[in-house]
Amino acid sequence: MAAQTEDAAIGGVKLYSAWFCPFAQRAWMVLEEKRAPYELVEIDPYDKTAEFLAVNPRGLVPAIKCANGDCVYESTVCVEFAEDAWRGEGRPALLPASAHGRAVARIWVDFVGRRVVPCFYRILQSQDAADQAKHCAEMLGHVKDISAAMAPDTDFFMGDSLGVVDIALAPFAWRFGVLEHYRQFKLPDTKEYVRFRTWWDAVQRAPSFKATTCDYNKLIAIYERYSNNTAQSGVAQAIRAGSALP
Amino acid sequence: MAAQTEDAAIGGVKLYSAWFCPFAQRAWMVLEEKRAPYELVEIDPYDKTAEFLAVNPRGLVPAIKCANGDCVYESTVCVEFAEDAWRGEGRPALLPASAHGRAVARIWVDFVGRRVVPCFYRILQSQDAADQAKHCAEMLGHVKDISAAMAPDTDFFMGDSLGVVDIALAPFAWRFGVLEHYRQFKLPDTKEYVRFRTWWDAVQRAPSFKATTCDYNKLIAIYERYSNNTAQSGVAQAIRAGSALP
Repeated sequence: MAAQTEDAAIGGVKLYSAWFCPFAQRAWMVLEEKRAPYELVEIDPYDKTAEFLAVNPRGLVPAIKCANGDCVYESTVCVEFAEDAWRGEGRPALLPASAHGRAVARIWVDFVGRRVVPCFYRILQSQDAADQAKHCAEMLGHVKDISAAMAPDTDFFMGDSLGVVDIALAPFAWRFGVLEHYRQFKLPDTKEYVRFRTWWDAVQRAPSFKATTCDYNKLIAIYERYSNNTAQSGVAQAIRAGSALP
Repeated sequence: MAAQTEDAAIGGVKLYSAWFCPFAQRAWMVLEEKRAPYELVEIDPYDKTAEFLAVNPRGLVPAIKCANGDCVYESTVCVEFAEDAWRGEGRPALLPASAHGRAVARIWVDFVGRRVVPCFYRILQSQDAADQAKHCAEMLGHVKDISAAMAPDTDFFMGDSLGVVDIALAPFAWRFGVLEHYRQFKLPDTKEYVRFRTWWDAVQRAPSFKATTCDYNKLIAIYERYSNNTAQSGVAQAIRAGSALP
C-alpha cells in the first residue's frame, strides 16, 4: 500500500506523449485529474530517440519519468500509478474505496482494452466493406455492454465523479468521430444508447478531458493512414498480423 | 483505498474454478497466498450453467462470489481484488509499497498477459512446424525479457517473497512441460536462462503453488485438443480467429 507521503516523494514528472495518441491521452488525463506536477514532452513515436528508449524500452507513448529517474509506461499502468502516487486533498480518488468496487472498475478497464481498442483499429484498418460493417456492429455491442454496466442516473461510469473506466474509454469515445468520418460509424438514435450519450456529455464537460484534446480536423487527418491500412505504428502492424497489441 | 476492516466485510468466498485452467490457477494461488477463507467450486467451463453465468456473465473461470453476492472475474482482477480485500497480519502483501514498485509489477503482469499467454496457445495450436518453431523462439525471447527484469539474487520476480507477477506467470511456466511434450519446447541450458530457473525452483517450493497443481499426465492429456487445434474454448477460438483473448 502506498505511503500517505507518496506525493512529496514523487515530485514533478515528465509525461512523454504524442498529441494524437489515445493511449497517451489516458495518461495525460490522469495527471490533469490528479493535479500532478508534470511537464509534457511531445515526441514523435515514429522516431524513437535513445533518450526516449531509456524511459520506455518498448518505445511507446505514454511514458512517465519521475524526478528520481523512475519510469512508468503502459497507459493503464500509468493511470494506476497516478492513483497510487498522488492522493489526499484536491486529488480525486479514481478508484472506489471497496475491494469489490475497485475490481468492477478494473474489469471494465480490461474490457475497454481487450474489446473496444482492437475493434476501433479493425474498423479503420479493414479494407473490405463487409468486414468494416461487421466490426462496426461489434463496436455497437461493446457500447451496449458498457452502457448496461454504467451506474444509472449519474454522469460517469461508476457515479458522479470521473474514474479509471472513464479515463480508459474517453479517448476512444472521442475518436468515434474518426470512425464516422472514414467508416460512417454512428450510434443509433435509440434508447439503448441514451446512457452512453449522457456519459459522453459528462466526459466532454470534464476539465481533464477538455485539457487533453486537439483540433479535430488534425486528428481526422492523422488517421488517414489507418483508414487505408498503411499506418506503420506498432498497433497498426499488430492488427494487420492478428497478434496482440503492443 | 480499501478500508483496513475489509477482511471482515468480505467474509468467505466461493472460487469457481476448473482444475486444468491456468487462469483459474492464478486466482486459486492468490486465495492460498492470502489465507483467504474460500470454498473451491469445480465447474465444467464447457457447460455453462445458469448459476455460473449469474456469477460471471462472460462464462469464464476464474470467478469469485462473495458472501454478500458481489462477484469478481478476470484472473488478474481477481488477484488485485484479493490484494485489496485481505490484508494485515498473516496475509502477505503481493504488491510493493511504493507507487513505482506497484507500477513495475503491473507492467510485467501485463507483459505476461499480452505476450506469454497468447504465445503459449499459438505454439500449441499452430499446425505448421515452421510456425511452431517461430512461436517457440518468441517464447524464449519473452522468457529472456522477463528474466532480465527480475530482481537478481532473490527467489521471486521482485524479491524474496512471492507477488503478483509470480502468480501471473507461474501457471504458464508450469505448463512449459506441455509445450515440451507436444512441441519439443525447451529452455536452452545457457546462462541467459539461469535466473528463470532459480525463479522456477522457488515457485515450485511455494506452498500456494504446490496446493494448486494436479497430476501432470492429466494436464498433458487435456491439452491434446489444443495441440491438434480442435479445442473449442474461448481462448482456442480467439487464437484461431486472430482476435483478442476472451
